[in-house]
Amino acid sequence: MKIKAIVTLKEGVLDPQGKAIQQTLNGMNFSDVKQVRQGKYFDIEVNLEDEKKAKAKVEEMCKKLLANLVIEDYKIL
Amino acid sequence: MKIKAIVTLKEGVLDPQGKAIQQTLNGMNFSDVKQVRQGKYFDIEVNLEDEKKAKAKVEEMCKKLLANLVIEDYKIL
Repeated sequence: MKIKAIVTLKEGVLDPQGKAIQQTLNGMNFSDVKQVRQGKYFDIEVNLEDEKKAKAKVEEMCKKLLANLVIEDYKIL
Repeated sequence: MKIKAIVTLKEGVLDPQGKAIQQTLNGMNFSDVKQVRQGKYFDIEVNLEDEKKAKAKVEEMCKKLLANLVIEDYKIL
Protein backbone atom coordinates (compact mmCIF):
# COMPACT_ATOMS: atom_id res chain seq x y z
CA MET A 1 0.00 0.00 0.00
CA LYS A 2 1.03 3.59 -0.62
CA ILE A 3 1.72 5.90 2.29
CA LYS A 4 2.32 9.62 1.85
CA ALA A 5 4.59 11.64 4.11
CA ILE A 6 5.58 15.28 4.29
CA VAL A 7 8.77 16.70 5.76
CA THR A 8 8.81 20.43 6.53
CA LEU A 9 11.21 22.82 8.19
CA LYS A 10 10.28 23.61 11.78
CA GLU A 11 8.74 27.00 12.56
CA GLY A 12 11.53 29.50 13.08
CA VAL A 13 14.01 27.75 10.81
CA LEU A 14 14.95 30.04 7.92
CA ASP A 15 13.74 28.86 4.51
CA PRO A 16 15.65 30.81 1.83
CA GLN A 17 14.18 28.66 -0.96
CA GLY A 18 10.63 29.49 0.17
CA LYS A 19 11.58 33.17 0.44
CA ALA A 20 12.90 33.16 -3.13
CA ILE A 21 9.65 31.60 -4.37
CA GLN A 22 7.63 34.19 -2.45
CA GLN A 23 9.60 37.07 -3.97
CA THR A 24 9.26 35.60 -7.45
CA LEU A 25 5.50 35.20 -7.00
CA ASN A 26 5.22 38.79 -5.72
CA GLY A 27 7.00 39.93 -8.86
CA MET A 28 4.57 37.93 -11.04
CA ASN A 29 1.49 39.89 -9.95
CA PHE A 30 0.74 37.54 -7.06
CA SER A 31 0.99 40.37 -4.55
CA ASP A 32 -1.31 38.54 -2.09
CA VAL A 33 1.41 36.03 -1.21
CA LYS A 34 2.70 36.75 2.31
CA GLN A 35 4.87 33.71 2.92
CA VAL A 36 5.96 30.50 1.21
CA ARG A 37 7.61 27.56 2.95
CA GLN A 38 8.81 24.61 0.98
CA GLY A 39 9.00 21.04 2.13
CA LYS A 40 9.47 17.54 0.77
CA TYR A 41 6.80 15.06 -0.14
CA PHE A 42 7.29 11.29 -0.26
CA ASP A 43 5.05 8.69 -1.80
CA ILE A 44 6.20 5.37 -0.36
CA GLU A 45 4.93 2.00 -1.53
CA VAL A 46 5.39 -0.72 1.08
CA ASN A 47 4.66 -4.44 0.93
CA LEU A 48 2.28 -4.35 3.89
CA GLU A 49 -1.49 -4.65 3.69
CA ASP A 50 -2.22 -3.38 7.19
CA GLU A 51 -2.52 0.42 7.08
CA LYS A 52 -1.56 0.92 10.70
CA LYS A 53 1.59 -1.19 10.35
CA ALA A 54 2.52 0.52 7.07
CA LYS A 55 2.16 3.97 8.65
CA ALA A 56 4.26 2.93 11.65
CA LYS A 57 6.94 1.69 9.26
CA VAL A 58 6.94 4.96 7.34
CA GLU A 59 7.13 6.89 10.60
CA GLU A 60 10.25 4.92 11.48
CA MET A 61 11.72 5.76 8.05
CA CYS A 62 11.04 9.46 8.63
CA LYS A 63 12.82 9.32 11.98
CA LYS A 64 15.81 7.38 10.69
CA LEU A 65 16.36 8.78 7.22
CA LEU A 66 13.83 11.11 5.63
CA ALA A 67 13.70 13.92 8.19
CA ASN A 68 16.44 15.70 10.11
CA LEU A 69 14.59 16.05 13.39
CA VAL A 70 16.84 18.86 14.60
CA ILE A 71 15.39 21.26 12.05
CA GLU A 72 12.52 19.37 10.41
CA ASP A 73 9.13 17.94 11.30
CA TYR A 74 7.40 15.08 9.54
CA LYS A 75 3.77 14.21 9.05
CA ILE A 76 2.25 10.97 7.76
CA LEU A 77 -0.82 11.72 5.64
CA MET B 1 -4.98 31.92 5.00
CA LYS B 2 -2.58 29.05 4.41
CA ILE B 3 -2.98 26.78 1.40
CA LYS B 4 -0.95 23.62 0.93
CA ALA B 5 0.04 22.29 -2.48
CA ILE B 6 1.97 19.27 -3.67
CA VAL B 7 3.89 18.94 -6.92
CA THR B 8 4.81 15.42 -8.02
CA LEU B 9 6.41 13.86 -11.07
CA LYS B 10 3.88 12.34 -13.45
CA GLU B 11 3.54 8.58 -13.57
CA GLY B 12 6.13 7.20 -15.95
CA VAL B 13 8.64 10.00 -15.45
CA LEU B 14 11.86 8.60 -14.00
CA ASP B 15 12.60 9.69 -10.42
CA PRO B 16 16.27 8.91 -9.68
CA GLN B 17 16.09 10.72 -6.33
CA GLY B 18 13.19 8.53 -5.20
CA LYS B 19 15.02 5.45 -6.47
CA ALA B 20 18.11 6.37 -4.41
CA ILE B 21 15.96 6.79 -1.30
CA GLN B 22 14.30 3.42 -1.94
CA GLN B 23 17.66 1.67 -2.28
CA THR B 24 18.97 3.34 0.86
CA LEU B 25 15.87 2.28 2.80
CA ASN B 26 16.20 -1.29 1.50
CA GLY B 27 19.78 -1.28 2.79
CA MET B 28 18.62 -0.08 6.21
CA ASN B 29 16.48 -3.13 6.93
CA PHE B 30 13.35 -1.61 5.41
CA SER B 31 13.06 -4.43 2.91
CA ASP B 32 9.28 -3.88 2.58
CA VAL B 33 9.80 -0.72 0.57
CA LYS B 34 8.87 -1.32 -3.06
CA GLN B 35 8.95 2.19 -4.49
CA VAL B 36 9.57 5.74 -3.37
CA ARG B 37 8.67 8.84 -5.36
CA GLN B 38 9.64 12.24 -4.15
CA GLY B 39 7.80 15.48 -4.73
CA LYS B 40 7.67 19.05 -3.48
CA TYR B 41 5.40 20.48 -0.86
CA PHE B 42 4.45 24.15 -0.59
CA ASP B 43 2.83 25.93 2.31
CA ILE B 44 1.60 29.24 0.89
CA GLU B 45 0.17 32.03 3.01
CA VAL B 46 -2.04 34.37 1.01
CA ASN B 47 -3.83 37.56 2.06
CA LEU B 48 -7.26 36.25 1.12
CA GLU B 49 -9.94 35.20 3.57
CA ASP B 50 -12.09 33.31 1.09
CA GLU B 51 -10.85 29.71 0.87
CA LYS B 52 -12.17 29.15 -2.64
CA LYS B 53 -10.47 32.27 -3.97
CA ALA B 54 -7.23 31.43 -2.16
CA LYS B 55 -7.18 27.93 -3.63
CA ALA B 56 -7.87 29.27 -7.12
CA LYS B 57 -4.97 31.69 -6.69
CA VAL B 58 -2.61 28.91 -5.58
CA GLU B 59 -3.73 26.78 -8.52
CA GLU B 60 -2.75 29.64 -10.83
CA MET B 61 0.66 29.81 -9.09
CA CYS B 62 1.16 26.09 -9.64
CA LYS B 63 0.37 26.43 -13.33
CA LYS B 64 2.58 29.47 -13.85
CA LEU B 65 5.56 28.82 -11.60
CA LEU B 66 5.56 25.95 -9.13
CA ALA B 67 4.94 22.98 -11.44
CA ASN B 68 6.39 22.09 -14.81
CA LEU B 69 3.24 20.68 -16.37
CA VAL B 70 5.16 18.76 -19.01
CA ILE B 71 6.52 16.34 -16.43
CA GLU B 72 4.75 17.25 -13.18
CA ASP B 73 1.27 17.22 -11.67
CA TYR B 74 0.06 19.46 -8.89
CA LYS B 75 -2.56 18.99 -6.24
CA ILE B 76 -4.04 21.58 -3.90
CA LEU B 77 -4.70 20.06 -0.46
